[in-house]
Amino acid sequence: MSDKNETRQNFSGEAEKVEEFNEFRERMNERILDSANINIKRFFNLDTRVYDEGNLSKQTKEMLGLVASLVLRCDECIKYHVQQCHELGLKEEEFFEVLNVGLVVGGSIVIPHMREAVDFWDQLQ
Amino acid sequence: MSDKNETRQNFSGEAEKVEEFNEFRERMNERILDSANINIKRFFNLDTRVYDEGNLSKQTKEMLGLVASLVLRCDECIKYHVQQCHELGLKEEEFFEVLNVGLVVGGSIVIPHMREAVDFWDQLQ
Amino acid sequence: MSDKNETRQNFSGEAEKVEEFNEFRERMNERILDSANINIKRFFNLDTRVYDEGNLSKQTKEMLGLVASLVLRCDECIKYHVQQCHELGLKEEEFFEVLNVGLVVGGSIVIPHMREAVDFWDQLQ
Amino acid sequence: MSDKNETRQNFSGEAEKVEEFNEFRERMNERILDSANINIKRFFNLDTRVYDEGNLSKQTKEMLGLVASLVLRCDECIKYHVQQCHELGLKEEEFFEVLNVGLVVGGSIVIPHMREAVDFWDQLQ
Amino acid sequence: MSDKNETRQNFSGEAEKVEEFNEFRERMNERILDSANINIKRFFNLDTRVYDEGNLSKQTKEMLGLVASLVLRCDECIKYHVQQCHELGLKEEEFFEVLNVGLVVGGSIVIPHMREAVDFWDQLQ
Amino acid sequence: MSDKNETRQNFSGEAEKVEEFNEFRERMNERILDSANINIKRFFNLDTRVYDEGNLSKQTKEMLGLVASLVLRCDECIKYHVQQCHELGLKEEEFFEVLNVGLVVGGSIVIPHMREAVDFWDQLQ
Repeated sequence: MSDKNETRQNFSGEAEKVEEFNEFRERMNERILDSANINIKRFFNLDTRVYDEGNLSKQTKEMLGLVASLVLRCDECIKYHVQQCHELGLKEEEFFEVLNVGLVVGGSIVIPHMREAVDFWDQLQ
Repeated sequence: MSDKNETRQNFSGEAEKVEEFNEFRERMNERILDSANINIKRFFNLDTRVYDEGNLSKQTKEMLGLVASLVLRCDECIKYHVQQCHELGLKEEEFFEVLNVGLVVGGSIVIPHMREAVDFWDQLQ
Repeated sequence: MSDKNETRQNFSGEAEKVEEFNEFRERMNERILDSANINIKRFFNLDTRVYDEGNLSKQTKEMLGLVASLVLRCDECIKYHVQQCHELGLKEEEFFEVLNVGLVVGGSIVIPHMREAVDFWDQLQ
Repeated sequence: MSDKNETRQNFSGEAEKVEEFNEFRERMNERILDSANINIKRFFNLDTRVYDEGNLSKQTKEMLGLVASLVLRCDECIKYHVQQCHELGLKEEEFFEVLNVGLVVGGSIVIPHMREAVDFWDQLQ
Repeated sequence: MSDKNETRQNFSGEAEKVEEFNEFRERMNERILDSANINIKRFFNLDTRVYDEGNLSKQTKEMLGLVASLVLRCDECIKYHVQQCHELGLKEEEFFEVLNVGLVVGGSIVIPHMREAVDFWDQLQ
Repeated sequence: MSDKNETRQNFSGEAEKVEEFNEFRERMNERILDSANINIKRFFNLDTRVYDEGNLSKQTKEMLGLVASLVLRCDECIKYHVQQCHELGLKEEEFFEVLNVGLVVGGSIVIPHMREAVDFWDQLQ
């Protein structure tokens, strides 16, 4: 199999992965918010608001969310914040500096999650 | 694709997921217990006994196991305790209150695992 | 030094420890809530409400909070929930069963925090 | 005891706490770097460089270090980054927004460490 | 389906899993090292050197890496060190003793990762 | 204050710290084992046996316990295993290599605990 084919195959496969990730995420969030539990709703609401533009820019806050997710090694959370950072125009060399802080703080166990983060970032291009 | 079809497809797919989860779990446990290591056997034994009916009911203990697994973000452990709680007759609104404590204690990184927990709970219905 | 004296000395010393713990906790909470940050206030509010009597009793929820704090090894949180459980009339043999679930789930690294929990429990008697 | 006295007493006590913290930190770092272990030296070197001004500003990187330390609940690390952020001119309302992201991502177990962070911040004023 | 067939099927399936694991690992590492970030390169370099033969043997260091990865519950890291330990001639009964220390220190949440570790070990035979 | 005086002062102060650490540890363990909870006793028993000489030497197992405690950042556990390693004749340059693996795996958040470990090691000399 040629490199070119593999890349093409990845491209479509990856696009599906991004979509699939977002679809499951949204479907389950709805399911959870449909439950009567008011405190869970409040938490979800808070989880959105905390990243709103404030004294710090939305981009800075999303970088904070990304590094926090990275050192806590939560792949879903990482992907979500990678997506947000990307949409907000974070540059690749800035993205890698965020990862680098997470790597030094959290150690080599962060590496597999860094791989996922970079893989997801590449799919978003 | 209609919603109805998707649900039907999920239903059978999910049933397989529960089975598959249980099958791998049991096969590997046997493999591990077949090893001569006596202390591992003792730990596995302890891991069963700690949830036995005692001064606290088995249901309460399984809820404790569930919230502990949730904040430590161990999907396999979560699924196991969701299954136990379900079999012991925990009601959905109680189930969500257990999740809610875990969510507030453990923060938004718990959310992806909460999604898995609710998804697994729905498969057990 | 006789055992009896040591115990007496502990008694008063420990009482101070409980008070000191509560004093610092409250002073800093006030300081934090005095900051203009509305989302932090919302989180603190949520952190109280989640333990309110609901479909599960307040006592069950406090046990859930205790075991979650134990496996996450947060001494301050452990102390807070030990205090709540004690006030709500949890019996010592029930208390130890909560600890036991946390110990098996979280492993031997939980032991130092279990020591603190038991020490704090004894101070509350 | 009047509030005013307590504050004054704190002021000097706190100043000592900052100094003591820095003294032990530096003494042990020297001790560790005196050991022949070259790879430990390399790690310490890396741990400094990663916060250097780059594509992201030093201040942004220190905020990243702070939130990462907060969700991993490492008091020493938190204090170090609070100190750096403070020296680099971070404003109090920005500081609280960093804490807020950490609180929502990491949950209520982060609160005791947030208290320490704010206490340390106040000592630096 | 006979046991024999299942085993045979596993054998080839598993071989692919080992390969696939190594392929993704290497591809993403290259991608990451291709980024201009010098500090990430330095970390990766350090991550290799720390396991070099030194005052402690390479095998001892790989066992240390394995138990550390196990209690931190990082499947990718576990697999990597299982592979290294296996290549360096660690015996199965020694392997299980490493797992056992990790199990007692880290608790029952380690069990799913222990299953993965043993499954991967068996694939390497 | 001269360096020599400081060292002497440390020496006696530190010796007390080692003793105090061991005293609280033993007193609380007894208190916990006096509780009727049979499963806690079993866990404590297991926690001793897992470090017994086996296919791996006691020293190797204590190093495994040390690195696991280090990456999980449990100061009490670290101190216990440092003490055991020291008694079993681990050399300083080997000790630092264990720390180094923990540092690279667990990242810079391990550093404060490494400081404690080295401080405790020095007190044992």
